[in-house]
Amino acid sequence: MNDTFLKACRGEPVAYTPIWIMRQAGRYLPEYHEVRKLGTFLDLCKTPERAAEVTIQPVDILGVDAAILFSDILVPLEPMGVDLEFVEGKGPVLSPPVRDKAAVDRLSVPDMEEALPYVYETIRILRRELADKVPLIGFAGAPFTLATYMIEGGSSRNFWNTKKMMYQAPALYHALLDKITACTSRYLAAQARAGAQALQIFDSWAGALAPCDFAAFALPYVQRIISELRQETDVPIIYFANNGATLLELAADSGADVLGLDWRINIDDAVRRVGDRVAFQGNMDPIALLLPENDLAARIGRILEQAKGAKGHIFNLGHGILPDTPPEQARLAVELVHRLSSR
Amino acid sequence: MNDTFLKACRGEPVAYTPIWIMRQAGRYLPEYHEVRKLGTFLDLCKTPERAAEVTIQPVDILGVDAAILFSDILVPLEPMGVDLEFVEGKGPVLSPPVRDKAAVDRLSVPDMEEALPYVYETIRILRRELADKVPLIGFAGAPFTLATYMIEGGSSRNFWNTKKMMYQAPALYHALLDKITACTSRYLAAQARAGAQALQIFDSWAGALAPCDFAAFALPYVQRIISELRQETDVPIIYFANNGATLLELAADSGADVLGLDWRINIDDAVRRVGDRVAFQGNMDPIALLLPENDLAARIGRILEQAKGAKGHIFNLGHGILPDTPPEQARLAVELVHRLSSR
Repeated sequence: MNDTFLKACRGEPVAYTPIWIMRQAGRYLPEYHEVRKLGTFLDLCKTPERAAEVTIQPVDILGVDAAILFSDILVPLEPMGVDLEFVEGKGPVLSPPVRDKAAVDRLSVPDMEEALPYVYETIRILRRELADKVPLIGFAGAPFTLATYMIEGGSSRNFWNTKKMMYQAPALYHALLDKITACTSRYLAAQARAGAQALQIFDSWAGALAPCDFAAFALPYVQRIISELRQETDVPIIYFANNGATLLELAADSGADVLGLDWRINIDDAVRRVGDRVAFQGNMDPIALLLPENDLAARIGRILEQAKGAKGHIFNLGHGILPDTPPEQARLAVELVHRLSSR
Repeated sequence: MNDTFLKACRGEPVAYTPIWIMRQAGRYLPEYHEVRKLGTFLDLCKTPERAAEVTIQPVDILGVDAAILFSDILVPLEPMGVDLEFVEGKGPVLSPPVRDKAAVDRLSVPDMEEALPYVYETIRILRRELADKVPLIGFAGAPFTLATYMIEGGSSRNFWNTKKMMYQAPALYHALLDKITACTSRYLAAQARAGAQALQIFDSWAGALAPCDFAAFALPYVQRIISELRQETDVPIIYFANNGATLLELAADSGADVLGLDWRINIDDAVRRVGDRVAFQGNMDPIALLLPENDLAARIGRILEQAKGAKGHIFNLGHGILPDTPPEQARLAVELVHRLSSR
């Protein structure tokens, strides 16, 4: 088995730097479109055979060192009682928005083991089909990020309603986060039980918060999830606080083994600030995949160089790969990371 | 004259911390809507008496320590040959997008003194009507930020086309930036000649760039503008690289007197990193204006405390005030900053 990824997560020696790519199963791949066109995006998430198929595609096509479950951070909100729809060209729509006590009270905290059987079935199929070729990563959204979708009713530019609740009705905000956290914690534990060999927590919107607000309204819930997971499983846990350069010291207290970094911060700066408490994952600008080969090699080489002092390094993009990226450029990046990091 | 703002920009002693608010002349004020409804947004920018009126409104209503010219960073692109329209609910539309050599070649570098007479007329009216009550800030967009609008044809989420040009056609990108920089430099110099007493350069999208790309594709043009302005005027220059926490050391080399900070970074951290080379402006989350009075006072007090070691501090929000903000909360924040910082 190629366990380079798991070793790097744990800070153990590796023969080369492992790489996987956020959204590596997705719209930039023609093979993905073939499967996706059989139904809606949510249909695909909920059809284990197909979800497993698109999860495996980038392992075969790109040669990455880990597979990540094909799903969406919002699917566990459905069994809590939120109506979820993905509207073409607009993104997710969650209704009704959760903005008052009645709405928070109405949310249920279901048995997550039973609520999302299609996720665990996808994981079981994947473990069988991957046959230990590469490890499988499970994932969930971080409670703050999930709360923004619930409160705003979808994506948001300023998070007006979320912050309004934080600032004007903090008890209500915390009651909502408690429910989301309980579900997320059990959801991730169930993924590990089903076979996920690492878990990533995506805090996509953490970077919208001032450090004091991140410390009060986001981080404690991530810490609670990770500490609960530690009771149940020893799989590596990756925490990705997107656009979180100024939150790094706080995020290092999350309890995660690995912190994801976006491209705004140089990894050597991150290492200087938090030392060897965590390994790092990242962090090339996704659009840098458009660079001509020599320049792409130079950029990858620089990131590898900056990560040399890290306890462990998993190469990744600083955010998801974009739909118009030529797949051959992603494949080239994987080759370059492997070649340039070989020791 | 209340020159507290200008003194703080220069790092001179002040009796209290001055404050102004980005977008203080704008949609959250009913008085603004009264004037705005007389025509389109661009009409308002181009009608000096009205633009001056809305510029002065927040000085009277909020009691801020500086006025900032009512205009838009995109107006100087019109005389370069770009068609500019503000579409309700969508934002600016610039056409045609500038993506190839022919489009860059077509752009002109007009005499900026003649090209935007309405801006300079607005400034002259304002200096007369403000009667030295508070200083007047002029402004422009930074070349990288202006280029993103030209290349993308409007606002953008990922800056795909901009970065594609940077990575795949750097010579073309630099040719475009040369033209924008020449215009912006002359535009700001003309604002100072007309009477602007400080100049702010808004790099709204700088935070989309990795540090190496900021250093190669954005900062040099800001440096050129500031060094050219220094030949002509000694007004304080503020550079605001939005979401630029990791760019701070680089931005401190811009030559600006003051760096604007968004709320993601604690000011004491900024001070630790660049020392007393610059003063700082910022940095409360705009939505924190929704905090109840005691919490608002605590948050303002903390920011003032964090800024104590700075060479100079101008209080501001970390981004523009949002349209749904109650004006009385903005007035309260101004009072609190003045009261809590009085020495």
